[in-house]
Amino acid sequence: MTGRSKPIAVTTIRGDLRESVDDRVAVEEPLEIRLGYEQGGKRHTQSISITMRTPGDDEDLAVGFLFSEGILRSADDLAIVKPCNGDNTIRVELEAGVAVDLDRLQRHFYTTSSCGVCGKASLDALRVQGMERLPAVDGQFSRSVIVSVPQQLRAAQATFDETGGLHAAAVFDPHGELIVVREDVGRHNAVDKVVGFLLSEGRLPARDFGLMVSGRASFELMQKTLVAGMPLLAAVSAPSSLAVELAREFNVTLVGFLRGENFNIYAGEERIT
Amino acid sequence: MTGRSKPIAVTTIRGDLRESVDDRVAVEEPLEIRLGYEQGGKRHTQSISITMRTPGDDEDLAVGFLFSEGILRSADDLAIVKPCNGDNTIRVELEAGVAVDLDRLQRHFYTTSSCGVCGKASLDALRVQGMERLPAVDGQFSRSVIVSVPQQLRAAQATFDETGGLHAAAVFDPHGELIVVREDVGRHNAVDKVVGFLLSEGRLPARDFGLMVSGRASFELMQKTLVAGMPLLAAVSAPSSLAVELAREFNVTLVGFLRGENFNIYAGEERIT
Repeated sequence: MTGRSKPIAVTTIRGDLRESVDDRVAVEEPLEIRLGYEQGGKRHTQSISITMRTPGDDEDLAVGFLFSEGILRSADDLAIVKPCNGDNTIRVELEAGVAVDLDRLQRHFYTTSSCGVCGKASLDALRVQGMERLPAVDGQFSRSVIVSVPQQLRAAQATFDETGGLHAAAVFDPHGELIVVREDVGRHNAVDKVVGFLLSEGRLPARDFGLMVSGRASFELMQKTLVAGMPLLAAVSAPSSLAVELAREFNVTLVGFLRGENFNIYAGEERIT
Repeated sequence: MTGRSKPIAVTTIRGDLRESVDDRVAVEEPLEIRLGYEQGGKRHTQSISITMRTPGDDEDLAVGFLFSEGILRSADDLAIVKPCNGDNTIRVELEAGVAVDLDRLQRHFYTTSSCGVCGKASLDALRVQGMERLPAVDGQFSRSVIVSVPQQLRAAQATFDETGGLHAAAVFDPHGELIVVREDVGRHNAVDKVVGFLLSEGRLPARDFGLMVSGRASFELMQKTLVAGMPLLAAVSAPSSLAVELAREFNVTLVGFLRGENFNIYAGEERIT
């Protein structure tokens, strides 16, 4: 069983003070849910979902997900719930006679960014897609620019103060100028909106720009940053383990806990001057 | 075009003071992305994704999503990007000759809770699934119990203090006792974990329990609360518009901005004594 957090070396910036410390990040890994059921007198098995999650209570996660989606009606429907093929797959076998309407589940789907059933496989899949390490010389950002962006973002966030319910994403240049700001109830949507804007403007890959997001930095947001060619992702809150691994593997600068004059650097430290 | 926030009447609790005020919530509605492309000399159209989002810059959202997923490589691939069938569908037509590998996109998918392309349709779909309004008499919770849960949750959150990167979900009874607490990088996963636990324990529908979540209350979390039969959802941060509509439609009590001695009630006020 993988733990829920793991140790990591980070560089902390506290005003003028820069030091290396040992910290911990929340573990994020994909979980595949496989459903076994009987139909027409035969047993079938189907991969139902891959979701990025923190390991622990995976059987409950699988069962709760299938219940929420209406596949499972009660505990009586369950024959077997157990891990298979290691820690990142849960097999749920339904009792014979439990009718399953997979059409309902598949009619509408939301694709994930994950392409495998372990963190390593997810990174490999990106490499297979042709992603390469960003060159070290891309985009340099000064400490003063980094700490200026959250205040600017807040000022630009027209709706945030009104509802307290919107995430924001902002793209900025090495002088600290905001190129585009977008808001959404979903953080990944806010990032898709700024990336879509840059694409439509013919500004991708955005080798000289940094991306700032409210909230946390997940694998999914780091992947979108990388695909858009941006050399820096900065988040107000914590990064996940897989976001850090992806950043280090592809040489993207990852900043977390960006608050006031302080922040942590989890990868690509040399871009911050 | 729907706005990004909408007015809403809420009841605010500030210690002993209870009053009705006008507030605003972030709008959350489903957006469907439809992709048109040429294959074998014919034009095809396919629904690619439905995501819950805040209206605005929907063309950028669709284009950014397709770019992040590797379907779109540059702005040159785009022939037409425009809304169709009203405000909640975007049609993206690719230029002839742009190869599309939809298999890659569909190999792994994460199902959404949304079942239609507007908020109204999502609510109707739940009704069609057999969901009924919760009876008013279910579960009564005192103000003192509600404000006690966040501190208890924080105390129980072993990993949170270590990483600052995990969401939590807790189920509690009318005496304020925590039944189960789970953590995850994904808020919906933390909720699936507690619901899965309750199911396995034979405690669903959980008519006497409340659910507390860190962060915001989205449509998806409200749906999971409703499906599990719980009469109350309390969140540390803001609810979305669709979460409020769902709560009011099915008579679930919705509490937001639960901090210290204060909180807001968005629906089902009569359950809070």
